[in-house]
Amino acid sequence: MKQKTRFSILVAVDGSEYSEKAFEYACKLSISKEMPLLITNIVEEHATVGYSILKELRNSSKELVEKYKTTAESLGVRSVSSIQSVGNPAEEILKITNRKKIDTIVIGSRGKYGTTRDMLGGTSYKLVHYSKCTVTVVR
Amino acid sequence: MKQKTRFSILVAVDGSEYSEKAFEYACKLSISKEMPLLITNIVEEHATVGYSILKELRNSSKELVEKYKTTAESLGVRSVSSIQSVGNPAEEILKITNRKKIDTIVIGSRGKYGTTRDMLGGTSYKLVHYSKCTVTVVR
Repeated sequence: MKQKTRFSILVAVDGSEYSEKAFEYACKLSISKEMPLLITNIVEEHATVGYSILKELRNSSKELVEKYKTTAESLGVRSVSSIQSVGNPAEEILKITNRKKIDTIVIGSRGKYGTTRDMLGGTSYKLVHYSKCTVTVVR
Repeated sequence: MKQKTRFSILVAVDGSEYSEKAFEYACKLSISKEMPLLITNIVEEHATVGYSILKELRNSSKELVEKYKTTAESLGVRSVSSIQSVGNPAEEILKITNRKKIDTIVIGSRGKYGTTRDMLGGTSYKLVHYSKCTVTVVR
């Protein structure tokens, strides 16, 4: 593997079966492109949720990304890291993408981050529209 | 290479610099996934265009895909084919995707098939929304 792998593959996971497929795709892409994998989960912010519930959601999020991290390593991904955030999924993913050097965002077509609700509201559409890097919507 | 490569990578090219990037991405994906590459160009249908102009557009389209086919082969893609069609780009690409076994549609983020016009009108959004397979929007 080349030493200078500055760009990463970012995968957004939400625990749904769709993000499972996106995760597998991202692992393969990370291996074939020889790029580190950055696993991210965004805890959606709801104004009505109190501090204790938010803390619980953060903990579940941490467990989720840790689980995926272990799986990625067992699948042969050589460099894996994770990042969590709280807020609007599309906005947070775009913020991370702008901060870190991301080659490709990989996201599921359904699930929390998908497109089920409506075309303009879905996270994947926002990412396709606003992201400065390549976006793969996995089915 | 495995013998049973039923699924292909479809790339839609329009001759713009954005589809150039999409094409390069698709070639690499085709090589790493050991899947044939299907190059497509859609001649947009305009009610006001007469037969002779349509014929000319078809010829330019044929030249374009042939040029990309040669480039793909020189880049090391082992199995390349092309398909042309006349009509609405998103609809035609979806029809081809349903007819052929397509693993991933690769498309540029701008250009004719991109998202410049408006969010719902852009070909890439329609593909992300309606396609049954994975879609990669390249930047």
